[in-house]
Amino acid sequence: MSAYISFILEIIGTVAFSVSGAMTGIRKGMDILGISILGLTTAVGGGVIRDLILGITPPKTFQNPIYAIVAIGTALIVCTPWMQRLFSKRQNYYDLIMLWMDSVGLGIFTVVGIETAYSVSTDFSLFLMIFVGAVTGVGGGVLRDVMAQDPPYIFVKHFYASASLIGAVICSLMWEPFGQGVSIIAGVVIVLVLRLLAAKFRWSLPKPGVGTSDR
Amino acid sequence: MSAYISFILEIIGTVAFSVSGAMTGIRKGMDILGISILGLTTAVGGGVIRDLILGITPPKTFQNPIYAIVAIGTALIVCTPWMQRLFSKRQNYYDLIMLWMDSVGLGIFTVVGIETAYSVSTDFSLFLMIFVGAVTGVGGGVLRDVMAQDPPYIFVKHFYASASLIGAVICSLMWEPFGQGVSIIAGVVIVLVLRLLAAKFRWSLPKPGVGTSDR
Amino acid sequence: MSAYISFILEIIGTVAFSVSGAMTGIRKGMDILGISILGLTTAVGGGVIRDLILGITPPKTFQNPIYAIVAIGTALIVCTPWMQRLFSKRQNYYDLIMLWMDSVGLGIFTVVGIETAYSVSTDFSLFLMIFVGAVTGVGGGVLRDVMAQDPPYIFVKHFYASASLIGAVICSLMWEPFGQGVSIIAGVVIVLVLRLLAAKFRWSLPKPGVGTSDR
Repeated sequence: MSAYISFILEIIGTVAFSVSGAMTGIRKGMDILGISILGLTTAVGGGVIRDLILGITPPKTFQNPIYAIVAIGTALIVCTPWMQRLFSKRQNYYDLIMLWMDSVGLGIFTVVGIETAYSVSTDFSLFLMIFVGAVTGVGGGVLRDVMAQDPPYIFVKHFYASASLIGAVICSLMWEPFGQGVSIIAGVVIVLVLRLLAAKFRWSLPKPGVGTSDR
Repeated sequence: MSAYISFILEIIGTVAFSVSGAMTGIRKGMDILGISILGLTTAVGGGVIRDLILGITPPKTFQNPIYAIVAIGTALIVCTPWMQRLFSKRQNYYDLIMLWMDSVGLGIFTVVGIETAYSVSTDFSLFLMIFVGAVTGVGGGVLRDVMAQDPPYIFVKHFYASASLIGAVICSLMWEPFGQGVSIIAGVVIVLVLRLLAAKFRWSLPKPGVGTSDR
Repeated sequence: MSAYISFILEIIGTVAFSVSGAMTGIRKGMDILGISILGLTTAVGGGVIRDLILGITPPKTFQNPIYAIVAIGTALIVCTPWMQRLFSKRQNYYDLIMLWMDSVGLGIFTVVGIETAYSVSTDFSLFLMIFVGAVTGVGGGVLRDVMAQDPPYIFVKHFYASASLIGAVICSLMWEPFGQGVSIIAGVVIVLVLRLLAAKFRWSLPKPGVGTSDR
């Protein structure tokens, strides 16, 4: 049952991150092949990093083609004229879709990271669960931004890694008492809501560098 | 016999990728040490990623110094005044040599990736063989471009990853019926020919972003 | 005894690299969260790469929270107004502190990389020891620079990787005859002294690209 939930979530996360990668590729003027690769890298990158950290070789993405197929299919759909018209309709549609897709992917992969760590060993510390969850969540987006030569979201977007970390902490703490299914849903929702609230109300943290000399 | 072919190919690929890394370093104004490191990273990067994915630790590059020695030696030769004169003779020599070196490396490492995956297990799916081959092929070049702060070739060069993928598919399909030696040679030649044809005739794919607002 | 020395050194290296990451984040105008993440990535990045190469999964950083806690705590201290005043007091304080912190981290992580390789197997070749040491030493800084979109130190700073390599060679050669404790201290001191001398006297190596066309 909960394996089923988690597979569905992983596919949704793959679609969401692939959309964010493909949209970044379009903005950078890439052709459809480059866009597909950036979509694929964003969608499977976090999971590959997670599996390498947990010692799962070859990583799941290399064993089951469904993730790559979904990611590339999604990126190609983003390239269709219909989607392009949607983006150009209103200027801020791009930012809005990007925010949602990236946030959904962040939430899902954070939680899937924790679940995968549990599946490897139940003896791992709470710290390891949270850290693996956060790295899985942010990994795909960091690869996307570094490869596309953008400033990584993780450094510039309000509350990005915090949302992943807070979701990871709550999801890990709920795992034993509340069971896997509830914890997974709760974790995803918390990350998503925190990210959207942070973007809506422009939560910001102090920037120590402001006011110093512009080195 | 085929282990011998594959070792020779790997050394040729190491030389080719090291040249491409060293030339990038020279263009970026690095000193001979930086150039050597970029040559080394480009030459061994794909293989290290491949070995981590396949669970071969420590990666082959760390076990046998021949690859590092060849890569650094090659980079130092690229730094000699003789080579510099060659590049400055005709403006387009740089681009031509870069195209050939990068294409040879791409072809060889794609095929070596497939061979290494087979050597780990013959139970791997066709998908895994192809995916590992392509990642091994493009890995060194992506590291080179990201570290040198260039837009990755994989996104901007005509047909780059397609060539690697098509070569990987054909090489993997030929493996059982035609034997290792023939498949290896065929795979390398296909990637190389596709890349060179793509560059020659400027094969291009649609760019969905063209015509939309310049965000 | 030498496990104790090595733990103390690792904590000092974590602090030093976290300072270098946090200072880079401040210069880039990041908020305190982004600064903490860049400090953390710089401090633990080399060790994670080392553990993946050596097949230690999950990497040590994921098993013991002390490194992450020290790294994030250090980054937050760098963000305090007191530290900001220190940097703005004299223009070149920033460069000086950055040089020292990065050099201390480079020396310590190079040596810790060698020690970790020895702890995995005493059968590894001298080449593997040196290579793992250098990769561990430079890994955190490369991740810092790539994520912050800076030209990697390893390519632009005088003698950077050479210092790590020379220290790694001497430390590895001393290991058997002189014992672990002495070799560790010697390795760190050699890397540090070489880097500081190189910066002081602006040791430079030939740049083959100078004088060619500005491509």
